[in-house]
Formats: sequence, structure tokens, C-alpha cells
Amino acid sequence: MGRPWILDYDSANCAIGAAVELIGERPTFLVLRETFNGVRRFADMQRRTGMPRQVLSDRLARLVDEGLLGKVPYQDSGQRRRYEYRLTAKGRDLWHVVTAMRQWGDRWAAPGGPPLEIRHTSCGHIVTAVPTCSHCGEPLDARSVTAIPGPGASDGDFDRTQLVIRPA
Amino acid sequence: MGRPWILDYDSANCAIGAAVELIGERPTFLVLRETFNGVRRFADMQRRTGMPRQVLSDRLARLVDEGLLGKVPYQDSGQRRRYEYRLTAKGRDLWHVVTAMRQWGDRWAAPGGPPLEIRHTSCGHIVTAVPTCSHCGEPLDARSVTAIPGPGASDGDFDRTQLVIRPA
Repeated sequence: MGRPWILDYDSANCAIGAAVELIGERPTFLVLRETFNGVRRFADMQRRTGMPRQVLSDRLARLVDEGLLGKVPYQDSGQRRRYEYRLTAKGRDLWHVVTAMRQWGDRWAAPGGPPLEIRHTSCGHIVTAVPTCSHCGEPLDARSVTAIPGPGASDGDFDRTQLVIRPA
Repeated sequence: MGRPWILDYDSANCAIGAAVELIGERPTFLVLRETFNGVRRFADMQRRTGMPRQVLSDRLARLVDEGLLGKVPYQDSGQRRRYEYRLTAKGRDLWHVVTAMRQWGDRWAAPGGPPLEIRHTSCGHIVTAVPTCSHCGEPLDARSVTAIPGPGASDGDFDRTQLVIRPA
């Protein structure tokens, strides 16, 4: 089947762009990494990331606006109302993106071995995430799939001209 | 098992950072997207991305330096030597990152449905990539794993203090 289409989707209609804009900014990424590690409180995040107070505050506000974090009140020991930040389902779903990035980094940019590993709670083993086909269960990679226009494709998103028809 | 460790790995030793720095910059990301779509030639990339010649040239040079693209000579019809850019194995492996981003975008930021879908060549179905456990094959997500220090962890990468021990 090869590559029947050369994809020409506009970046304005690019589903990947939404994730890039969130994760591509280092401060936002650092905040998300902390929340995946279970850190929820402003003071802890500030201490661990070393980010200036105002930068951290802006990023948290943006992540709440984007629906990735929920801001939940709690009472500290001094009875003052404070807030902690928890990943929403939308935020938690970014785990797949972060995991894919981490595994790529482990494979190609970690000469001393992975700085972090994951243990699958239910089977107890140190594992990696293997992207598999939702239909047949086989592992997927760049060469095993072909991209085609989806229901959200706009006119002009795809250029059906076969620009590249030479063998690889 | 919950969360036994709060992870405190330094960003300098963060395997994810390497991927973020590559994909987080929009021009670099656009070039990679084109190469995944089979576009290999400078003029085609320039036309499709709308990037200024010098910006595109710089990005391509960087991606070659990073070992993500190979620069391969070919003869055009005028017999002048030209180059095309092909993904290396390291570059092709970013497919997992781009796919995770796309699927997140499809789920959370594509009200009109996915602009692009993938067909698994061997089974013929329109599919998604499901991250599964490399040991037991079950689907993985943020809540089914625990992060632990790996062989490449440095002193100080991990803070074993249980900062977060309250129930979620």
C-alpha cells in the first residue's frame, strides 16, 4: 500500500499542534512533570523546579484554564484556605505523550541508561509502553501504517498528488 | 503500591528534555511532520510549510546534525547534484511521540473529529496506537504504573521523601 497520500493538513487544523503548544514550552512541561510525580502544592513545585514565583503562577493558571489541572481547596495547619493542583482526565491523558518522549530519550539520548523506569503495578515488572494496534494487537511503528484523511479533515488539508513515488 | 517515590530528577538528566527540545520548536516540528509524510526535498518542504528559506535550511541542518535526518544526494533532471532528506532510525522512532501527541489532540482538541487517521497496513483497519505493557500486554496509563530510579539516575535525581501520602 505504501504511501497513497502526501498529507498536507494545515497547521491550524493539526491535532498535534495542540499538544506541542502545551508541552513544547519548558516551564509548562516542568509543571506537568511535577504533577505526574504527585507534586500538587505551589510551594513544593516552586522548590523543586526552581521557577520564579510569577512564572510558576502563570503556568499553573494557564494549565487550569486549559482544563489540564484542577485547582482544589484544602485547609493547611494554620486554617488558611490554600489550593492544590491535580491532573484532570485530560491532563492525565498526556501521560502517553510524556511516556513516548521519555522512551525515545532513553533509547537515543541516555548513554548512562534510563534515569527513570516504570513498574507496572498489576504485573510487578519493570516495563516499557509498546504502542500496539487497537484492532489486531500487533506492535505499530512508522512503517506499518498509512495516514489517511479523517472525519475532521478540511478541504485543502490533504493534497492527494503523489509527490513521492520513488522507492525508499 | 501507590506512589512510593516522589521523583526529583534534574532536568539536565531528563530523558524527556531531549525530545521536548526537538519537537517543542514549531519549525523543527513542521519539518519532521513533512518528513513523516514522505516529503524529502527542500523545495517541496518550503512550498508546503511556507517557511522562509533560511529558517528551513537551518532546521534541516540541525536535524542532520542531531542524527534525525540523513542528507542523501540525487541527480535531478538537469543533472545537477541535489540532496534529499530522509528520516534515520532515530528520526523514525519519533513516530511514537508524534502519534501520542496526535491521539491526545484528537481526543481533547478536535471537536470535528480527527483530521487524520491511520490504517494499519497488515490488518487493513483504521486503528489507534494503544500503549501496552511490554511484559504482560495489558494497556498502560498514568495510574497503572509507578516510577522508580533507573540505572542512569544520578545522585540527587530522586528525593525519596514521601511528600504526597494523602489519598487522591
